[in-house]
Parts: sequence; structure tokens; C-alpha cells
Amino acid sequence: MTRMTTKDTEATRIDPCSARSVDLEAGDELVIIDPEGQQVSDLVAFARDDTREYLSSGRSIDYASRLWLTTGDLLYSNRSRPMFEIIEDTCGRHDFTLTPCSKDTFSIIYGETEGRPGCEGNLASALAPYGIGVDQVPIAFNVFMHVAVDAGTGRITVEPPLSKAGDHVRLRALMPMVAAMTACSAGQSNNFRYKPIDFRVERAARENK
Amino acid sequence: MTRMTTKDTEATRIDPCSARSVDLEAGDELVIIDPEGQQVSDLVAFARDDTREYLSSGRSIDYASRLWLTTGDLLYSNRSRPMFEIIEDTCGRHDFTLTPCSKDTFSIIYGETEGRPGCEGNLASALAPYGIGVDQVPIAFNVFMHVAVDAGTGRITVEPPLSKAGDHVRLRALMPMVAAMTACSAGQSNNFRYKPIDFRVERAARENK
Repeated sequence: MTRMTTKDTEATRIDPCSARSVDLEAGDELVIIDPEGQQVSDLVAFARDDTREYLSSGRSIDYASRLWLTTGDLLYSNRSRPMFEIIEDTCGRHDFTLTPCSKDTFSIIYGETEGRPGCEGNLASALAPYGIGVDQVPIAFNVFMHVAVDAGTGRITVEPPLSKAGDHVRLRALMPMVAAMTACSAGQSNNFRYKPIDFRVERAARENK
Repeated sequence: MTRMTTKDTEATRIDPCSARSVDLEAGDELVIIDPEGQQVSDLVAFARDDTREYLSSGRSIDYASRLWLTTGDLLYSNRSRPMFEIIEDTCGRHDFTLTPCSKDTFSIIYGETEGRPGCEGNLASALAPYGIGVDQVPIAFNVFMHVAVDAGTGRITVEPPLSKAGDHVRLRALMPMVAAMTACSAGQSNNFRYKPIDFRVERAARENK
């Protein structure tokens, strides 16, 4: 299987405060783009043949021995199988410790009462056609999210993303899966300017059968 | 509901490289004890009336704004409901970012081939009577686990626990649940001396009905 060298799809826009899902085959490349800068995208993924297998922050961080993953790192499933390889990363700083923002997050952290679904609710809606429920939405690979850590106290602070307009991450899929991504709804994560995210899938050429 | 002041149960021993499960009611206090020092216990918990609700590292870290939780902190479920309050902590340093060690962890990190089940397998066995499968074992609250972080690079290192003989953590249960704990099987976590863990449940007095 060799990857096509031509761009065979246009970028798809994820509108502010929403999510999209996409099917990926092994060898496909998923490019997640921050078109305007300083916007976070929460990424989750599930093995398509058994959605109990999912992208696992705890496994990935453990095997990399690093909280922040970038080019060359593998993202593992809960079953310790590689799901993605990060093959390009023009930003270099992402988070993999926090759960997607939710209605309850907004209530607990911001005192919001309007009941916005947040990334969790948006991911659950995008994944519903695959039979994946909201309780299965795990800690996401929070692309472009900038979480600073105080190594003495463990205190974490959510800072504006370091991503500039056009920054992107390219992930090679290593198994058949469904992925879902958001344009994040949490003000803290995007400096309180809710913006879109773009993504593109570059399909691997399939062998003739 | 008031808690009994007498110790109404003796400590239960979790043998080295094994796990135990226990039912907890709201108000019960779970005391996890390191009897010899420098031993880790991976703790997971599930709401007993719906085991899709589980103890969530991502939620708990987010709401505390701290990687390392201690006395006064709440441990939340994936549904953002408080499951435990830490009401006593004589050690003060625990991890909440890494998944329980597993057969695959030992293979990937240590090159082990003997197929030990690790904390993940031991937790799954302890939780099987509740219909909770291995894929539902999430990132654990890794009691006494000492993970150091480099705030510049995000590099993490697993250090010997800071716990001394007799150190313990006391958790108040805030909903009916099943919890499971291990005496951790990972050499890195316990300075390559596999030791037991003790725990005790101090039951809240039930109102007469």
C-alpha cells in the first residue's frame, strides 16, 4: 500500500463549537489544521471493528515517557496497539491529560448555566451513528491545547494555544478506525475566541483486489 | 447518617501483584495503607447502579487544576459527579495520569515476555463478578505512585514512591460504588520490590429503616 501523492480531498471545516467524525483506514493520513490560530481540537478515535478499543492517553503517555507528544510519537489504544503515528507537527504543543469540556465542565469551572454541550456532547453526537455513547468519550488528544505544569506543585494552567494560523498536525492511521474531532467550545482553551478547525484526509492508495 | 467511630473492620491484605474489589456505600471510608513503604496501589471505581460511570482522571485533574491530588480534593466520575473526597493523606504524592500496568506494558517498557497480568489484568479479574471487562479499566488513581514531570519538556519519570511504612490515604465514598485496588506489579513503580497493600473500610452507620 502506497500513499497517493496528490491531495485527493479538500479540507473539511468544523464550525466553531461543533464536531465531525471520519472513517480512516490503515495508511490514511489525517491532517488537523488550525486555520486562524489559537484554536484547540479535541481528537478521539475508536477501532472500527470493536469500539471498546479506543485512543488512550494513559497508554500513550506511559510509552512515550512524556506528557506532550509530537512528531515521531505513537498514539496507542487502551489495548496497547498503535493507532496513530504523528508524522508532522508544526505547532509542537498539545495536551493529553484532560477530558473534553462538557455542560458540567462549564458549570463547575465557569459557572455557566446555559447548558452548551461542549466538546463531549459534540463528540457524542458525531459518534452516535457508530453506536458510541457519551460515556465512551475518553480523555482526548487535545490538539493545540496548551496546558502548563508547575513541576513542584503539579498545578496546571490552561494557556492560549501556541498554534498560529495554518499550523497543523499530520497523523498516520495505523488501523481501521472512526475518529472524531472538535472545534473546542471551552473559552479557556482558545483565549475566549471560538474559531473553526479544518481537517483533511489523504487516503492511502488501495491495492487492486 | 453518621460514621461509626469504632473500627468495625480489620485491614484486608492485598498480596503482592494482585487486586481486590470492595463494595462501598455513600459515607463509607476506604483507607488504603502501604504497610512496608514504597508500594503503589492502583485504584479504580465504578458507580454500582451503572458501571458505565467510572472514576475519571481527566475530570478530576481538570476540576482541581492540579496533576497531583491530596487532602481536600474531590475525585470525579466521567459524568462529573464526585465519587470520593480525600479526607486524609499522610504521603501526599500520587499519580493520576497513567493506565494500570499490563502484560503489554511489561513487554513494551521492560521487554518482559512471561505474560504477567499486571494491575490491568488483576483489576479485570477482581471486577469480573460485576460484569466489568478489561476494556473498561481506565487510568487509575495510582496511590503512592511518584511520577516526576519536567515542566520544560513534559518528560515524565517514574520514581520510587515517597510513602513510608504505615502511610495511608483515607477516601470518603460519595456514592454507592464498586472499587478495586491493587498491590502494583510494575517494578518501576515500587523500586523493584513487590510488596503488599492493606486496606480497611470503615462503614458509615446506616439509619434504621
